[in-house]
Amino acid sequence: MLASIYAALVRIRHNKAFEFFVIAVIIISALEIGAKTYDLSPSAVAITKYLDVFITVFFLVEILIRFIAEDKKRDFFKSGWNVFDTLVVIISLIPINESELVLLARLVRIFRVLRMISIIPELRVLINSLMKALPRLGYVVLLMFIIFYIYAAIGSFLFKDINPVLWGNIAISMLTLFRVMTFEDWTDIQYETMDVYPMSWIFYMTFIFFTAFAFLNMVIGIVVGVMEEEQSIERDKGQPSLIDIQTQIANLSAQLEQIQQGMQSQSQEHTAKKS
Amino acid sequence: MLASIYAALVRIRHNKAFEFFVIAVIIISALEIGAKTYDLSPSAVAITKYLDVFITVFFLVEILIRFIAEDKKRDFFKSGWNVFDTLVVIISLIPINESELVLLARLVRIFRVLRMISIIPELRVLINSLMKALPRLGYVVLLMFIIFYIYAAIGSFLFKDINPVLWGNIAISMLTLFRVMTFEDWTDIQYETMDVYPMSWIFYMTFIFFTAFAFLNMVIGIVVGVMEEEQSIERDKGQPSLIDIQTQIANLSAQLEQIQQGMQSQSQEHTAKKS
Amino acid sequence: MLASIYAALVRIRHNKAFEFFVIAVIIISALEIGAKTYDLSPSAVAITKYLDVFITVFFLVEILIRFIAEDKKRDFFKSGWNVFDTLVVIISLIPINESELVLLARLVRIFRVLRMISIIPELRVLINSLMKALPRLGYVVLLMFIIFYIYAAIGSFLFKDINPVLWGNIAISMLTLFRVMTFEDWTDIQYETMDVYPMSWIFYMTFIFFTAFAFLNMVIGIVVGVMEEEQSIERDKGQPSLIDIQTQIANLSAQLEQIQQGMQSQSQEHTAKKS
Amino acid sequence: MLASIYAALVRIRHNKAFEFFVIAVIIISALEIGAKTYDLSPSAVAITKYLDVFITVFFLVEILIRFIAEDKKRDFFKSGWNVFDTLVVIISLIPINESELVLLARLVRIFRVLRMISIIPELRVLINSLMKALPRLGYVVLLMFIIFYIYAAIGSFLFKDINPVLWGNIAISMLTLFRVMTFEDWTDIQYETMDVYPMSWIFYMTFIFFTAFAFLNMVIGIVVGVMEEEQSIERDKGQPSLIDIQTQIANLSAQLEQIQQGMQSQSQEHTAKKS
Repeated sequence: MLASIYAALVRIRHNKAFEFFVIAVIIISALEIGAKTYDLSPSAVAITKYLDVFITVFFLVEILIRFIAEDKKRDFFKSGWNVFDTLVVIISLIPINESELVLLARLVRIFRVLRMISIIPELRVLINSLMKALPRLGYVVLLMFIIFYIYAAIGSFLFKDINPVLWGNIAISMLTLFRVMTFEDWTDIQYETMDVYPMSWIFYMTFIFFTAFAFLNMVIGIVVGVMEEEQSIERDKGQPSLIDIQTQIANLSAQLEQIQQGMQSQSQEHTAKKS
Repeated sequence: MLASIYAALVRIRHNKAFEFFVIAVIIISALEIGAKTYDLSPSAVAITKYLDVFITVFFLVEILIRFIAEDKKRDFFKSGWNVFDTLVVIISLIPINESELVLLARLVRIFRVLRMISIIPELRVLINSLMKALPRLGYVVLLMFIIFYIYAAIGSFLFKDINPVLWGNIAISMLTLFRVMTFEDWTDIQYETMDVYPMSWIFYMTFIFFTAFAFLNMVIGIVVGVMEEEQSIERDKGQPSLIDIQTQIANLSAQLEQIQQGMQSQSQEHTAKKS
Repeated sequence: MLASIYAALVRIRHNKAFEFFVIAVIIISALEIGAKTYDLSPSAVAITKYLDVFITVFFLVEILIRFIAEDKKRDFFKSGWNVFDTLVVIISLIPINESELVLLARLVRIFRVLRMISIIPELRVLINSLMKALPRLGYVVLLMFIIFYIYAAIGSFLFKDINPVLWGNIAISMLTLFRVMTFEDWTDIQYETMDVYPMSWIFYMTFIFFTAFAFLNMVIGIVVGVMEEEQSIERDKGQPSLIDIQTQIANLSAQLEQIQQGMQSQSQEHTAKKS
Repeated sequence: MLASIYAALVRIRHNKAFEFFVIAVIIISALEIGAKTYDLSPSAVAITKYLDVFITVFFLVEILIRFIAEDKKRDFFKSGWNVFDTLVVIISLIPINESELVLLARLVRIFRVLRMISIIPELRVLINSLMKALPRLGYVVLLMFIIFYIYAAIGSFLFKDINPVLWGNIAISMLTLFRVMTFEDWTDIQYETMDVYPMSWIFYMTFIFFTAFAFLNMVIGIVVGVMEEEQSIERDKGQPSLIDIQTQIANLSAQLEQIQQGMQSQSQEHTAKKS
């Protein structure tokens, strides 16, 4: 009997209709979250409560089905997406009576929308490819952090007394520099410090140039990375590289040499026999 | 007699002068729309009224000519541009006496300017190529929407009481986040919420990083798409791929082997005959 | 004697030292223009006056030398740069006593700095390549203008009464839309119109999307154009295309076939002779 | 004995653990600089003082080890990174009692963080590749400077009396134009001058277009440069160019021709002998 239940669960798990139903429930849960941000009538609030229970139970059942239907239980948690799904489900089981945890419980419910990504394969591929691009950019990010850190330290030392709200300590200074990088009212900040240090425009100018340059480098890094990936995909599809073609031609040349030698020996043989 | 009229219409339709005249009328209609946004003298207003009637009638006649001169009437509405042109003409025929429809009628008149795109082939090609790029970006747009939706829900839950004008409900929050994405006075919004939640800069930072990353991905997607298209166009022009060349060389090698075998059999024959 | 003067002028014109001297005078004239924007002492003002006369005369002499040293006088004005240089020199000869023309004369003096571009070959190449990129972008610019025109007309019709300073007529509206495109305080404009038309965010959103899309298209157009140019330069350097290689291999194959036929005929001859 | 000390130093210099210890000290020195921007308790201030002495001495020892362990003392200062490290160490040895130099001494301590770049090879490579990209962009930067200079001169002449804070002299004007280029409240500047010169929007529009165009050119220049570099790296890895392949095929053709001639001479010989 257990075996037949197992078989039934496997069948459900790979059922297209079941998958669409899961997506539908995720969308409903997303809409419910959106609806809650509006002022609702008491009856609507009651509906969302029942809906909440239904979605929580449904997600629990769904993850159990997927877990049981998995051949090797260990492999289930090897996929980061499954771990993510399980965490979201478990945390939303925590009772939300205690007023302090209400906010957290609500936030976890919002993360349910992320299940949209884990269920749609195309989005999963997109996220995975973004993840793969990250390490390549690691050193550029480190470089950018060093630039930010140095400028924040200088800014904090020089401008602390001018405006402690913007340059009070190194953390606040880094936030201010991020603001400068987005060009958000950066001249207000600049004019303020230029009243005390007239040459402080050099500070902002060089900072903008360095970050823009590092950012540009990052973008180019990604573009080049993507293009190389494209090329390697092409190659995997069976497109030969130029070096393959060169080897092929070299083989031809060897073949020809063999023919030439064959002819020479034939001709020598000929001559030998004739004479 | 009908046939001769038909032939005349076809001739008009493919007449270069007629086409330029249509473009001229579209430009005049565009200029008229522009002129109407200024305060005009009564006589000028009277002129625009007559001009309006003329343009409406002219566009009606033009579309009729194009429709009648079409070989297969069904194919006429298969082109989205023809459908668009017809709709613009028909809606502008609606009498604009009723005061409520005045605004709509005016707006439809403005869309006449879009006929510029449908009449100039180069612009039509441009729009078509943009349309073709859209589906490729579908999933990135979906991903971006999910990011916006989640952040808008979080923002609405956390910051609703701080500033209901910016975070009142999920729709307003998404508009606010679009504003943050364009860096438009985003620090004002941030400083406001940081007074209550000092760590809320994480909310803005991560949002900016995620959207910038998704946006970058979109741009790169388009660039790579365009380059692939270029390559396939090159290929259509007769440029062979490397795999074609590899096949060609393999054929050469086969030819050479045939020669080698031919020579060996010849040589064996020789030896056989000699002995 | 005239011939010897002519020869001397030609020698001067192609003299490296002369060229550097011209560049030096242009830099001095640029510095003089910059200095004039400061409040100068009377003696410094007197110096700039003499300097002005010297630069004007020098440029006149220099252009005369270049004109006389030109082999074919007609070709001189075929180059846009020569026409530009001549115009700048002639206009700066206009006496600036009349107070109304003072401003114009001053502006023309500023354009002398542009002679920097016409005298440094690398900058001239840069500008020429930018010029070459322009026509390719013509239709994208036209498309962008149509988008601006339509949105400006709609904006002017709908929002004229809300804020005539921003939406008074189609010209002002286009300026406002350019501001929206640069994200400069665009939400202020949006919130103002949203008080009257709550759905007007659609107007701004779609406008931003369309212009960003058209702009992206322009950038990609330039990138692809530049890459094609690079490829064609590579080709001009002697790099063959794949189709050239295909032709070459086809020739090889033909050669081999000839050999095969030669062998067959030889072998037949053999057999024929033997029998 | 000196030789054994020398050998020990060389061993230390190439020791992985030593390198990690140096990185750790740099990170500690960076954290100390960050900590100093906060208001510290007297005991914490005392700790930073001892830490300061330790870091200064450690860096001095470290640079001495590296200098002594260098085979050829001359080569040590050929590397810009070594010169940079030495300068940072020497300047931080200057006593900071004199109150005027306190600020400078503090700033030099901040630059110690830059040693992070000189010690991590990946970051050094990144910076070196950025440096290599710079000269290629030299002329674009010069062109941009000329655009800025001309517009700043025009702006200063025309708008000086409208707002001397923004257009007072050519240096301030260039700063204002940089602000316009970053779109930071540029319309405020524009509306101010449009009250006096209604057509002054042309000034801003053309400036934005020219700088955006030059900037675009710079970006494309970098992208194309990076791609060419990639290609040349590929080539260095042994990937042949198409011209190499063409030469190879031409060699094949020559080989074939030789075979053909060989066969012809053989056949002629044959015929000659037979007759």
